[in-house]
Amino acid sequence: MNKQTVAGLDIGGTKIAVALADTDGNVISHTRFDTRVELGPHRILDRAIEEIERMRDDTGTRLVALGVGCGGPLDRARGLILSPPNLPDWDEFPIIEIIEKRLGIPAVLDNDANAAALGEFNYGAGRGMHNIVYITISTGIGGGIIINDQIFHGVNDGAGEVGHITVLTDGPMCGCGARGCLEAICSGTSIARRARERLLAGTQSSITTMAGEINAVTAKVVAEAVRAGDKLAAEIWDETIYYLAVGISNTINVLAPEAVILGGGVSTAGELLIEPLRRQVQSRNTMLPPDKINILQAALGGDSGSYGALILGQSGIAPKNATKPDGSGHQ
Amino acid sequence: MNKQTVAGLDIGGTKIAVALADTDGNVISHTRFDTRVELGPHRILDRAIEEIERMRDDTGTRLVALGVGCGGPLDRARGLILSPPNLPDWDEFPIIEIIEKRLGIPAVLDNDANAAALGEFNYGAGRGMHNIVYITISTGIGGGIIINDQIFHGVNDGAGEVGHITVLTDGPMCGCGARGCLEAICSGTSIARRARERLLAGTQSSITTMAGEINAVTAKVVAEAVRAGDKLAAEIWDETIYYLAVGISNTINVLAPEAVILGGGVSTAGELLIEPLRRQVQSRNTMLPPDKINILQAALGGDSGSYGALILGQSGIAPKNATKPDGSGHQ
Repeated sequence: MNKQTVAGLDIGGTKIAVALADTDGNVISHTRFDTRVELGPHRILDRAIEEIERMRDDTGTRLVALGVGCGGPLDRARGLILSPPNLPDWDEFPIIEIIEKRLGIPAVLDNDANAAALGEFNYGAGRGMHNIVYITISTGIGGGIIINDQIFHGVNDGAGEVGHITVLTDGPMCGCGARGCLEAICSGTSIARRARERLLAGTQSSITTMAGEINAVTAKVVAEAVRAGDKLAAEIWDETIYYLAVGISNTINVLAPEAVILGGGVSTAGELLIEPLRRQVQSRNTMLPPDKINILQAALGGDSGSYGALILGQSGIAPKNATKPDGSGHQ
Repeated sequence: MNKQTVAGLDIGGTKIAVALADTDGNVISHTRFDTRVELGPHRILDRAIEEIERMRDDTGTRLVALGVGCGGPLDRARGLILSPPNLPDWDEFPIIEIIEKRLGIPAVLDNDANAAALGEFNYGAGRGMHNIVYITISTGIGGGIIINDQIFHGVNDGAGEVGHITVLTDGPMCGCGARGCLEAICSGTSIARRARERLLAGTQSSITTMAGEINAVTAKVVAEAVRAGDKLAAEIWDETIYYLAVGISNTINVLAPEAVILGGGVSTAGELLIEPLRRQVQSRNTMLPPDKINILQAALGGDSGSYGALILGQSGIAPKNATKPDGSGHQ
């Protein structure tokens, strides 16, 4: 009898990541490839399943369950993906039904930030902890919360929406319709927008040269310009850290987690981001001693989501494990 | 053999509340009396214990455990009260040791907001729910969080510090040393301070007449003046609701609880506070449908804390019940 394995699938707007582990959770294979959103949901899912089947065959194992992390909104209980902004045409897409029919194994769905939280919790910066908050700072800002070793979903799966914490009342308009959300100031998209606004208003900066043109400015270029000593970039970066400190401090005031773990593209700036952020959260949040305020960079990079999806998959065959994704009971 | 009972003791700076219940949690007696802080911790605790003994004897029952809620800071694990601002001379006061020696039964300590959260969860506005946030708006603003039917304490017992959520960056200085905390704008003390500042600056208002003199202005008088149609009072009240909506919305973004339950003196304004607050949180928090945003007034008034302390007491004799107050495990 072949060794049993579980697969984790993380579907993003840019990349798809897949991981395969034995039923004890030891990862034996993982990979990433471009999403190519233009192919549409069915062909994208076909390619992902083929990749999983290839991994299964290459390792000579028998796949017994699969977990999927994907950008929301989604309907976890019914296994549907509901029009995520970064995945055009994924409207009420019945991903779980398709996978279960095609592979004949149970599949479990959760949103990408929850999956990544579970990945960092089990394999990354949150190993050995029980209560963590994972925040991804990317195109948007999302979050996943682990409480007592399980994803905490909250009412309507609404927990962990840290990107929509108000950090500046009457601040810039957010995509959610409110003003001054953390995401509207500190997401990668918002960092780039603030830089472009200042450049268009005539502020001198090396950012434009580094980006090639104003429309090509990204958060990554801003971070590079900070390292190169650019004054405007430093101002935008400081402002970003200031409001991230407010949002993270507010989250800590509510939950006092063992760690806040930062993932997503903007977090790859590393200590340029984390070191001043940690200091500011520590000085803003006087209710906890500084050594209890633990802000860490995600350890798995682009694999947090697929590694977490593995754990979701495991939960489909061992209901008492790691999470209860069926929405019943006590979350 | 006499029927077994459990007592709950809630020690506040103004009032002490005591409740007695059978071991199934049915309350059979409860009372409140003035704290008289000038008596100091030993005599105050003596009076509380005498009251509990009287209740026990009047009901002809046998007391088997006691729970205590008290203002923090405190050391739950060691059973010490550590200099709460509203209880002068309670410095490293070993309340649990004294109670256990005197009554010969196990006693369990937690902070007053956690006890009140447990009271509302078991007996009040949160009955039948699993995940709630309780917020007391009083001299200060405190909170208690129930997740999966248990108090969630967080690292260093730091969870639920919703009074120190930043709602206005660079806002008024808070007692905690940071600026723009919810408590620094919306606590009863802060509402009264803001009214006095406006009155001293010369704004005409009926508040002064209603209070007798500017120094006698309280949040209660401000609420009365709002009902009487006073313009300044309405402005201060609207501002209070605006920032409360920011703080509560931020809390909901993190946790998506089944309800946010408001207790404490300021909450007794009832629908004058709750109705506009609910509307504003619903319009600010677009991540949840309005009917999933549930803001309720506490149902037990001054008894939330003693009723919750009962449940703490029960946990001392039935470790799997309601809470894990010994600091071990996954909290």
